This record gives sequence, structure tokens and C-alpha cells, in this order.
Amino acid sequence: MSVSQLASLTAIARQTRNAARQLGVLSTQAKNEAIEAISIALEAAAPDILAANGADCERSRGEGIAKPLYNRLKLDETKLKGAIAGVRDVGKLADPVGSVQIDRELDRGLNLKRVACPLGVLGIIFEARPDAVIQISSLAIKSGNGVILKGGKEAIESCKAIVKAIHQGLANTEISPDVVQLLTTREEILELLKLDEYVDLIIPRGSNSFVQFVQENTRIPVLGHADGICHVYVDAAADLAKATDIVVDAKIQYPAACNATETLLVHRAVAADFLPRVTAALQGENVQLCGDEMTREVVEIAPATEEDWATEYNDLMLSIKVVDSLNEAIEHISTYGSRHTEAIVTEDAQTAETFLNQVDAAGVFQNCSTRFSDGFRYGFGAEVGISTQKMPPRGPVGLEGLVTYKYKVVGEGHIAATYAGKDAKPFTHRDL
Amino acid sequence: MSVSQLASLTAIARQTRNAARQLGVLSTQAKNEAIEAISIALEAAAPDILAANGADCERSRGEGIAKPLYNRLKLDETKLKGAIAGVRDVGKLADPVGSVQIDRELDRGLNLKRVACPLGVLGIIFEARPDAVIQISSLAIKSGNGVILKGGKEAIESCKAIVKAIHQGLANTEISPDVVQLLTTREEILELLKLDEYVDLIIPRGSNSFVQFVQENTRIPVLGHADGICHVYVDAAADLAKATDIVVDAKIQYPAACNATETLLVHRAVAADFLPRVTAALQGENVQLCGDEMTREVVEIAPATEEDWATEYNDLMLSIKVVDSLNEAIEHISTYGSRHTEAIVTEDAQTAETFLNQVDAAGVFQNCSTRFSDGFRYGFGAEVGISTQKMPPRGPVGLEGLVTYKYKVVGEGHIAATYAGKDAKPFTHRDL
Repeated sequence: MSVSQLASLTAIARQTRNAARQLGVLSTQAKNEAIEAISIALEAAAPDILAANGADCERSRGEGIAKPLYNRLKLDETKLKGAIAGVRDVGKLADPVGSVQIDRELDRGLNLKRVACPLGVLGIIFEARPDAVIQISSLAIKSGNGVILKGGKEAIESCKAIVKAIHQGLANTEISPDVVQLLTTREEILELLKLDEYVDLIIPRGSNSFVQFVQENTRIPVLGHADGICHVYVDAAADLAKATDIVVDAKIQYPAACNATETLLVHRAVAADFLPRVTAALQGENVQLCGDEMTREVVEIAPATEEDWATEYNDLMLSIKVVDSLNEAIEHISTYGSRHTEAIVTEDAQTAETFLNQVDAAGVFQNCSTRFSDGFRYGFGAEVGISTQKMPPRGPVGLEGLVTYKYKVVGEGHIAATYAGKDAKPFTHRDL
Repeated sequence: MSVSQLASLTAIARQTRNAARQLGVLSTQAKNEAIEAISIALEAAAPDILAANGADCERSRGEGIAKPLYNRLKLDETKLKGAIAGVRDVGKLADPVGSVQIDRELDRGLNLKRVACPLGVLGIIFEARPDAVIQISSLAIKSGNGVILKGGKEAIESCKAIVKAIHQGLANTEISPDVVQLLTTREEILELLKLDEYVDLIIPRGSNSFVQFVQENTRIPVLGHADGICHVYVDAAADLAKATDIVVDAKIQYPAACNATETLLVHRAVAADFLPRVTAALQGENVQLCGDEMTREVVEIAPATEEDWATEYNDLMLSIKVVDSLNEAIEHISTYGSRHTEAIVTEDAQTAETFLNQVDAAGVFQNCSTRFSDGFRYGFGAEVGISTQKMPPRGPVGLEGLVTYKYKVVGEGHIAATYAGKDAKPFTHRDL
């Protein structure tokens, strides 16, 4: 990237930040009106968007695009209508900005409030899916943030048409169109990652390796997870019918999802009973299995290697290990799990409590499928991503993950010296 | 560092993590009993700790230690008693672990809880102050976390004596002494920063450049701020008597603190009135002043350079700039502020609201000194640090910053397939 390109990207970022500062203080009503205006503009521009997408699809086919990527790139009327309905749904979500988390008198006439406020500017980097532009822009506006979007080159014409419509929609609202910006060249990814002065959160949407690349190349906080290695542990006190249903669902319901299960842990006490039935059920669903030595003494499947325990298959494959105890199960999860979602199947309340408390993961489940680990299923409305970091926001992240807070202190000329030294006045610290 | 040293550090970290996993699920009572046991052990070991500190002080004097560092290193009976009283205070703070933040029925028999839980293992790197070991260890235990401490080499004997006493105190409690570990060689800092598999949060306590060094050399989240460039903006509608008191307090009450003010912004409409009286008051307190051209048309002070606006003096120095408008003040703060704490002095409610809403900083204050930006003053009890990052925890961080949360989902054999496809069962999503 040339010096002038970087300068222009910095200028764009500064422009976005200034527009976002105005957006950040608007009322919920003003934001919802803008979201409705965007829906209407997108509906009006639907023929243009579909035509642009047609051009993207044709060009990408000519360049030999992979089939799954093509499916994500391709927009049709139904998909576009669904995305626009999604914008209206965001309008209905609770406004995450402005909630008062702490309201405290520090001393007479000196009051502290902790208030939720927007982060500022989001940087979103995504692969082919042009409908992501629609979803993310509406989430950004609802949470009072500006957004700089960088889409994959496959989707460039679609993204341009969508952002053009969003800008048209915003033109007659209180919100400056500058709050939504689209970058269109590949070199801009690395430059975007360097703009820590202007961009407050990066949300990468793509493969694990892509998310990891982003994490390693920026000082900006990144919302995303690098791996989803989830386990189901079937305890000695498990209901084996439930366990079978849960393991099958956790593996096959959508194997490419990060919350699908990759390894089954089985307590030795139920291995002889459980392994034949669960493997039969899984093989009936075309799941390829591998197991440790003890598993293979019970059922005839391929041997598992050390590498299997550390692999997110993202596919109809499952590794199985027999463990001697709850503690061995927890140890295995602690060593190989990615702290995403971990489930136990047991009817023993004490065992379940130990597992849920001691396993370190964003989601710890008893007697249900790991597939429930999801913002929609948790009732968050829209999901901006799932985070496997330890610090909040952790797990499925809704609009709440796009805001932070600030401390507002209002006095009447109060100075710190009054509360220091030997005649220090005490604070009242009274919650209001 | 040799391979064997790294292996041993990894072993220590793993040991700490395992001990922390047990600690993390203990009751508040068990943790408070351990904190009391630590207080008693520290009292019993006071002569040993003071003797060890005497040796550290003597050796450091021989090595020509700088005076401020020596003052932080030196423990006497009063300082040690104060630190032990601080441990007992931590015992009295509310337990941040276990609070239920979300309690929701997803469907009949399928329930979601979001529960606060410990982070796991904290890595604390601090300079000379040995009493930091006492404070941080008690905070770590109260929040259910293990802690790996790396102190400055000046304080090595003091730290060893303190940690020995803490281990003795823990020996007869439910908590393994392994939860508190002390590293003693300088090379271990960089190795500690690499242990992202075992350490969940790094808290550096030291100079700005040290904090920045830590931030640039780890993938572990860092709680800390690199700079505190705070402003007071005196508006056209300011009460100039209040403004003078606030500016003087914000500058001189403790100039080395990060929440001290470095730049005064004055609205042109009150510059002629205000600048002579505020500069007289500041000069009466030996504050060195510099200002922009418009300031220097009113008062005779040194010229300010571009560098002044970007400098945290940490000293009795203040830069002054006259601005044409509220917006210019906000722009200046946006460009040069470090997002720490920013204050406006005004009697105009609308102007104050705009400032508090639009200024992007952890603390936004009206009519009070920037020096109030502090965990104790906010009523958080103990403060683990002040964060100038945008994502929470932001601003002064109490025990709350040492915990995260996990989602616990308990079902009765529920599988995701029930809620998918054309006969999908709807979720109830009912808050309990």
C-alpha cells in the first residue's frame, strides 16, 4: 500500500470516528428510524443489489471459486429479503446504550454514574458473504458505533451496491452516512489492523486460521475464536438414552459449527454398555470414528492419535476416549479443549456441579447438546460472534459486546484535597 | 533462560492453575478464613519480613538505588501493619464470584444461567514495592484466582519472606499454598508473558514504559494503562472560582498520579478573566506553565510546543490552550487525551451533557477534580489498577476486574434438532 493510500485510509477512519461520535449520543428512536430507513432503501435497491451480485457470481465462477464460498456469495431474492427482515429485527432489540450500571453518591453533591456507551468504531473483516454487510451495519448503528467493513474480493460489487443503498437510506436521517464505510482492496486489511487509534474492536468473520491471522497482526481487541474443540463427557451416572441422543445431535446437527462436538469422553463404568449403542447410532449417521485403546477393546473403530484430541474436525468425524474418573475427564478437557463449550451427561447432581464449576469454558452444559451454545438460542437476538477469550465478553456475544461503559462524575466544585490528609472528609459511598 | 528453566516455569504455571481450579469453587467463608490465616501468619512473620527488607535495603543502597525506588522498597513496622490491615479489609469486600447475571428459561426444562467465575491465574509484574505482594495475593484469593508474582530484584528477600508467611498461613486452610507463586529471576518476565495457555491476565504495576513493554510482548490480556494525559476544560459558562480550585487540585494534589491534569483548556470568552487568576494560583504552588499563542497574549508564560499537548508531565508542570468552542475542546481531547479522565467546568447543563456524552474517556467529569478517578474514591474498596482500554473493564478496576463469567445450561436430554428445521419448536426465552 502506498503512503497516499494509508493516508486516505486514516482519513476515512477519522471521518468514521467523528460521525460515530454524533451517532453515539442519538436517542433509541432516532437510531430505530435510521434502521427503518435502511430497510426501505435496501428494498428499493434490491434489483441493483441482485444484479451486482450476479456480476460477482459470474466473475467468481470464471475464476474457479470453491463451491461452499460460492454458496455464501450467492444472493437471491429470498436471502436478501431475509437479510432485510433481519435489519428490522435489530430495530426491535433493546438499545444497549445508556443503561446505568452504577448510581452512587460519593459525597453530598458529588455523584458517580457508570453508563453503557458505544465502543466507537468497529472494524469488520469478512469473507464472501455480502449479507454480512447488512446485518453488521444495522447492529453497529443500533449500538451507536461506526463501522469500517472489509469484504472479500469475490463480493465486491454486491458489497458496493449494498453500502450504496445503506448510504441512501441514511441520507435523510439524523445519522451521517459516514458511519458505514466499505474498503475494497486486499492490502487494506493489514492497514486496518494498524489503526488502533481509530478502531476499537475488530470482528473477523471467517475461518479459524483467518481469525488467528487477525489476532496476531493487531493491537486492537479482537472478538472471535480460533477453535471450537468441544467435548461431551458421559458419566458413570448418565442416562444412556439421553447420552446417545445428545452425542448424536452434538456431532451431526451441524458438524461445521464451532459448537459441534469433536471428542466423546466415556466413563469406564458405562463404556461396555454405552459404546456399542452410541457408535452404532453415529455410524448410522455416517460419522467416522476413532478411539483410544480402551474404547477399541469394546468397539471396532480406528485408533485415535494424540493429534485427534487436538483437532477440530468441522466434519462428520468424532474421537472417543474412555476415562477412569470425572477428574480425568476434566483434565482431558483442560488440556485439549478450546474453552468454548463442554457438556456432561449425568443424573448425579454433585458430579454435575463439580463439572460445571471446575471446567473452564464459556459454556458448561449438563444433559443437553453443545449445539445450544449460540446467541439466538440464548435469547440474545442477533449474535455478533462467539468469543473464546477469558475476559468478557465471553461466549456468544450479542449487542452487549458492542458497547463499553464510562464513569460520569458530577460535582459542585469538589476537589480531592478535601478527602486527603489528616482532616480528610470521609466519602459517603451511598448507592442511589 | 535455559530449556530446563522454561520447563520449570511451565510446571509452576500448571501447578498454579490446578490449585486455582480448586480455589475457584470454594465458598466465600473458606476464602475469608484463608485471608484471616494469612493476616495472622504475616503478623507472626513481621520480624523476619522486616529483617529481610532491611537486607534488601542495604544491598540496594550499596548498588546506588534511586531515592523514589528506595522509598517504595523500604518497609517499616507501620507500613507492614497497614498492609496487613489491608488484607483484612479485602476479607470484608463482597465476593465477586458466583453472582448470577442472567437466569433464563430457554424452554421447559432447559435453563441458562450466566454466573461470575474467577479468571484462573493472574500474572503480576511489579517494581520494588514488596507490600504489593501482600495486597495482590489477598485480592487474588478473594476473587478465586491463583497468582504468579514477579517482583523487582531489589525486593527479592522481602518478597520471599512475605510469600513464605503467606504459604504458612495457607497451610492449615482449604486453599493450597500453590495458589501463590513467586518468581525471582529477571529472565522469567518474558517467559511469563509467553504462558498464554496458563495465565489469564497480566497486571503490570510500574512506569508507563514498563506497562507498554508488557503490552507489546504478550498475547495475554493486560490490565493497565500506558499514559494518563488528562484535561480540564473551563467553559464559557464556568464558575471561575470553582474552576480555579479544581485546576489547582487536579494539578498539584498528587502530580505523579495518572489522574493528575496535564493540560488546561480555556474558552476564549473567559480567557481574559480566568487566565490571570488561575496562573497566579498555580505559580503560587510552583507549577511551571506553558501556553499557546492566545494564552500568552493574556499571561506571560513559556510557549507550548506540539510535544507539550502529548506529554504526561507527572510533575508540577501544566500546558494551557485557549479554544474557540466546546467542539474545539472536545477535538483537542480526542486528539491528545489518553482516554483516562477528562473534566469540564461549566454551569450550563446542556454543554456539560454534550461534553460528558461525546468525550471518549473512562472518566468524564463535571465540576470536580480529575483526581477523583480512583477505585477507592469510587467506593470499590481495593483497586487492582486503572485501565485505559476501551473494552471493559475500563477505568478504576476493583475485584470485579479479576472475574469473568460462564454460561451454565442445564437440560433434561435436550437436543438442538428439536429447535431447527420446518417443525422447529420455539424457545420460550423467559427470564426467571
